[in-house]
Amino acid sequence: MKQITSEFYNIYFDNTLQSLTDFLALNTYSKIFIVTDENTGKYCLPVLQSKLPQLDTYNIIEIPYGEENKNIDYCIAIWRMLLDFEADRKALVINLGGGVVTDMGSFAASTFKRGIDFIQIPTTLLSQVDASVGGKTGIDMNAVKNIIGTFVQPKAVIISSDFLKTLPLREITSGFAEMLKHGIIADKAYFERLQQIDTVDNVSNDLVFTSVEIKNKVVSTDPYENGLRKILNYGHTIGHAIESWSLNNEKHSLLHGEAIAIGMVCEAYLASKLVKLSNHDLQIICHTFIKFYGKYSLKTGIEQALLSTMRNDKKNNAGNINFSLPDKIGNCLYDIPVTETDIVQSLDFYRTL
Amino acid sequence: MKQITSEFYNIYFDNTLQSLTDFLALNTYSKIFIVTDENTGKYCLPVLQSKLPQLDTYNIIEIPYGEENKNIDYCIAIWRMLLDFEADRKALVINLGGGVVTDMGSFAASTFKRGIDFIQIPTTLLSQVDASVGGKTGIDMNAVKNIIGTFVQPKAVIISSDFLKTLPLREITSGFAEMLKHGIIADKAYFERLQQIDTVDNVSNDLVFTSVEIKNKVVSTDPYENGLRKILNYGHTIGHAIESWSLNNEKHSLLHGEAIAIGMVCEAYLASKLVKLSNHDLQIICHTFIKFYGKYSLKTGIEQALLSTMRNDKKNNAGNINFSLPDKIGNCLYDIPVTETDIVQSLDFYRTL
Repeated sequence: MKQITSEFYNIYFDNTLQSLTDFLALNTYSKIFIVTDENTGKYCLPVLQSKLPQLDTYNIIEIPYGEENKNIDYCIAIWRMLLDFEADRKALVINLGGGVVTDMGSFAASTFKRGIDFIQIPTTLLSQVDASVGGKTGIDMNAVKNIIGTFVQPKAVIISSDFLKTLPLREITSGFAEMLKHGIIADKAYFERLQQIDTVDNVSNDLVFTSVEIKNKVVSTDPYENGLRKILNYGHTIGHAIESWSLNNEKHSLLHGEAIAIGMVCEAYLASKLVKLSNHDLQIICHTFIKFYGKYSLKTGIEQALLSTMRNDKKNNAGNINFSLPDKIGNCLYDIPVTETDIVQSLDFYRTL
Repeated sequence: MKQITSEFYNIYFDNTLQSLTDFLALNTYSKIFIVTDENTGKYCLPVLQSKLPQLDTYNIIEIPYGEENKNIDYCIAIWRMLLDFEADRKALVINLGGGVVTDMGSFAASTFKRGIDFIQIPTTLLSQVDASVGGKTGIDMNAVKNIIGTFVQPKAVIISSDFLKTLPLREITSGFAEMLKHGIIADKAYFERLQQIDTVDNVSNDLVFTSVEIKNKVVSTDPYENGLRKILNYGHTIGHAIESWSLNNEKHSLLHGEAIAIGMVCEAYLASKLVKLSNHDLQIICHTFIKFYGKYSLKTGIEQALLSTMRNDKKNNAGNINFSLPDKIGNCLYDIPVTETDIVQSLDFYRTL
């Protein structure tokens, strides 16, 4: 079993889930609550149960699947369940699911009775390489992603590739975008390994481990996002805005990774214009994302809606829209103010690919 | 100007509000939001404006007056206002009001974009001696007080007795209950000074300062309420339950201090039964609270409703209802499990006074 030791907790790469058994044996909890969604309740909970037969008493809190449900209404539903089942401060919440479950479940836990313990068991590639590490909790509001949240660390993160086996390819591809991001912002050699993959459905455990290592290194340096951590937002300023727009306007909306893949192309264009990303690196980035994600039909006329969302991005201050932009593959700058004109131009750049 | 230096922030006793002027000069904020209720918007905001004429650009977020509004709906309203006015992470929230404003305003600020700065300007005696110090934020849900919240410290607390001048006597009396509590749990001489006061409308600045000192000392030792801080909950287990019941069932409901005054009498009875509080001290406590608060007509038949609320009290664990009980005036124990039979008996004790 591989393990990454973070400042406040451990990240276990552990298909046996022995680490969870050990954790529960070491800690006394009054009650255990498992937060799932419809899918993870069906596909992942039985896996958990089969590996932890001794975990026989717990309450399940199931939320509907999908980013559109990562909102205050379902958060209230989680709080009410905890209240109805008389969770006290010694209760434990285990979040078993993708980013919606881990983000919202951890926000609910971190604010219930001013904070109870929680464990993250991310079951999608996206949440394994992204949401599970770093202590960010959150829910969306008014189409702004993660606008309400806390910085609170889990007690442990447990990553098992067994859960990925139940995932549709599209979900794997979505998570893969964050891995590419880790390469672009921090590790060129890693990016080059990822580029060469033929199909994403055989992403190895080893690659997941490297991604988590990169993310963990960045967030350990800057847990409250005062500086370096912002580089993880590469692709996310435009990507989040497109994701929110899609969520509210398209029947078959984009997944998170699909949206930030578009965002990373647009922002690579901005990087080439503003922080000297070479044309060569820009081409490689564009080529890679088109290879894995194809071309999204980015509608015209939605620029103002996107900009309005971007103005509420958490990285902004003093009225500027701030970006994290790579100056070369493997390194990233942050707090780069970008004009609205340039942002609109970057969307046009994507459309012309 | 007197000042208490807490670990993370200062508490200023400052009628001139010069400390706020200085704070704003030292820190650069992108936008300032002042949270008020109907009353403090009318009576306290003009005082603030007259003393800080240079503070000319801010947004006001007004919530309705009253504990029943310290709920998720109004919290969402505050979040939406922050979002609509494009508050970024460098925005500042100034909470100008009683406990509802300071608790809910600080919870909203501590979770907006995962936390923006806030300052507490408590305008009631209760919030000056209680809610303003200690970094607890919170809202109520399902009649359970402060069930959702965070531990996040303000950037500063500013206490001005000028704001108290606009308060009805009943509000002053409510706040006075927390001061009596500080005496009972931590400082016998202070309690004796308070006992001798004829009418609470001339509570001196000096007494407020001592109360804040006591509370600050306790919370600095134990910011996350793992131990000693629990003594501040004396009177609150039963008091909160009565307060919640009253809020939901009585037209003219009890104020917080009025409810915990009843709670302190009941819990003094429990202390005499369980932790050897002397009969003499019990009599003094009963006499003092009856002197200042009179006798509340505590209905019969509500015991189960009260117990149900108490079971959700944050101090409980492993199914016990835990209390903080003084073993003598000036000292308090915590984590004392009490049976439901004894709790019901303590309510009867109050009724027979």
